[in-house]
Amino acid sequence: MVPMQTIGLVRSPYTETAHIPRGPGAQHDAEGVLDILPEFEEGLTDIEGFSHLFVLWIFDRAAGYELLVTPPTATRPHGVFATRAPRRPNPIGLTVVQVLRREGPRLHVRGIDMLDGSPILDLKPYLSSVPADQLKRGWLAEAQAHR
Amino acid sequence: MVPMQTIGLVRSPYTETAHIPRGPGAQHDAEGVLDILPEFEEGLTDIEGFSHLFVLWIFDRAAGYELLVTPPTATRPHGVFATRAPRRPNPIGLTVVQVLRREGPRLHVRGIDMLDGSPILDLKPYLSSVPADQLKRGWLAEAQAHR
Repeated sequence: MVPMQTIGLVRSPYTETAHIPRGPGAQHDAEGVLDILPEFEEGLTDIEGFSHLFVLWIFDRAAGYELLVTPPTATRPHGVFATRAPRRPNPIGLTVVQVLRREGPRLHVRGIDMLDGSPILDLKPYLSSVPADQLKRGWLAEAQAHR
Repeated sequence: MVPMQTIGLVRSPYTETAHIPRGPGAQHDAEGVLDILPEFEEGLTDIEGFSHLFVLWIFDRAAGYELLVTPPTATRPHGVFATRAPRRPNPIGLTVVQVLRREGPRLHVRGIDMLDGSPILDLKPYLSSVPADQLKRGWLAEAQAHR
């Protein structure tokens, strides 16, 4: 398999998983910094023109995985690929953040839901979205109806 | 770094990069199959309740990377993290697909933009979107204005 390398670290107000807002309707307004390693800074050229980015990062404090999981928001077990649970076969997290400003290799963003120090693998522009009327939210809609 | 493992392969009509529609306004209506390995099938439980999924996959035919790239749609070089170019420090692709149906470990989807045989790393439910009026599209909007 392709070896993955850290391109930077997340600077987050969250140092414990329990502090991160979770579940349907959770607001991710936390601000933080995507601290990109100097050797990758050139790759950020023009990134501040995008309002939102995808951040691919590693759940580095998750160990192992289960194929059936019951997230905090769920009423019964679901397949791990139908959830955002951290203990996945490849522990990659995906977060959409809003770009606030860039200071050289440091991107200040809003919408942090990672633990402080999480390794970053990639950044990509967030370009488009699926119209709301075409979106189905699977077991999450069902779980919310039970709340 | 965390070792990554293939959880399945993309079955795509595209066998050459040149055949994949690219650029602003490119329509990705191609249908294909996410062929998940049998040992991970249980992880798909309830996934058919979601209309759209994120697919994380490997640009396995991309070699090396450049920090400044000029995509086909661009008028000048941009930082690789401000593009979707395949030659990235970590060659991970991210595609949103629409779920058509599931047959055991085979997920039939629409919206394929990967080459046939691309290794899959992860699937995640696509849950929400950034409202269109809050989205800025950076250099892509500028490149489109020049066409």
